[in-house]
Amino acid sequence: MDERIRKQLAFALEIDKEKNILRQTHLSGHGRRENDAEHAWHMAIMAYLLREYANEEVNITKVMLMCLIHDIVEIEAGDTYAYDEEGLKSQKEREERAKEKLYSLLPDDQKRELVSLFDEFESYESPEARFAHAMDNVQPLILNDSNEGGDWKDHQVSAELVYGRHKKTKLGSEKLYEVSDEILQKNIKKGNLKE
Amino acid sequence: MDERIRKQLAFALEIDKEKNILRQTHLSGHGRRENDAEHAWHMAIMAYLLREYANEEVNITKVMLMCLIHDIVEIEAGDTYAYDEEGLKSQKEREERAKEKLYSLLPDDQKRELVSLFDEFESYESPEARFAHAMDNVQPLILNDSNEGGDWKDHQVSAELVYGRHKKTKLGSEKLYEVSDEILQKNIKKGNLKE
Repeated sequence: MDERIRKQLAFALEIDKEKNILRQTHLSGHGRRENDAEHAWHMAIMAYLLREYANEEVNITKVMLMCLIHDIVEIEAGDTYAYDEEGLKSQKEREERAKEKLYSLLPDDQKRELVSLFDEFESYESPEARFAHAMDNVQPLILNDSNEGGDWKDHQVSAELVYGRHKKTKLGSEKLYEVSDEILQKNIKKGNLKE
Repeated sequence: MDERIRKQLAFALEIDKEKNILRQTHLSGHGRRENDAEHAWHMAIMAYLLREYANEEVNITKVMLMCLIHDIVEIEAGDTYAYDEEGLKSQKEREERAKEKLYSLLPDDQKRELVSLFDEFESYESPEARFAHAMDNVQPLILNDSNEGGDWKDHQVSAELVYGRHKKTKLGSEKLYEVSDEILQKNIKKGNLKE
């Protein structure tokens, strides 16, 4: 086996660990906690199916790839809950170190490509990054909505905090923000999300 | 919320159930059993990283999509182990019914598109289908190899049976078949896979 493919397969094996990184979101049907790999898979399919709602034209391959890889750094850095203010402060630094370590398993050209894609995602600086972030918000929203807002209740987050995150969906998709707003308002009315 | 997006989100919520469909493969580090969503996520990333080894030029977006959706039917039809000869006999019929039921949640145009993509995958009739199938073989192979062939041992499958499946990798990628063969031979030598 030559060095290039050996490195590619070593990376492929390493990212298997993403399946053990648990998120705060629970699966539908009041299921167990979701893991990062499942979340990424779900986002990538949703991105493809909902691409017609992107504000700007997007390269859907790039969006799907961003969705698939955006949490790989959490293998080293751990998951940071969207509403964990302390964790969010150190998140960037932890993820930078993780990025260097994990992507260095790949051949240099692929390391550069995936690091660049991850950085683009993080920066919100392209239509693809903005649309991928919209998926990162809408995917857990539909699960949490199906579970009567259990994840918000567990963490006692307020509508204000939740809107702080979801308003960024608007950057990627006005339409999906409208739909998210409708879902959030329904949950506020039901008492699943405190005002 | 209009009918089109309501249907798209209903489908997105339904496929969440794929995270509960367990495969026979175990995660690396002698972990728990893998589920279909994790497997699909892993295949899609591997397809992108290993696309240079496809025998023929492939539309990588299509390959990734095939990888992402190829097991959705198992939400209804259940997982059929690659070496379960009885299960394999009824697999086609069970999956046909499941396909109709699940994809009917989508708007008609998207139902047609995804059903057609799934059928293409199943048929091995395009370079994309053949390469996606190679991923369906190589992904569990690297996990099982990392676990000293535990999955083969659990099911007491023979090298002959395993080769029967892996030889199809060659249709999508000669190079990945060579590498698979190298991995299989190593496991036979180690006694992880019986001759």
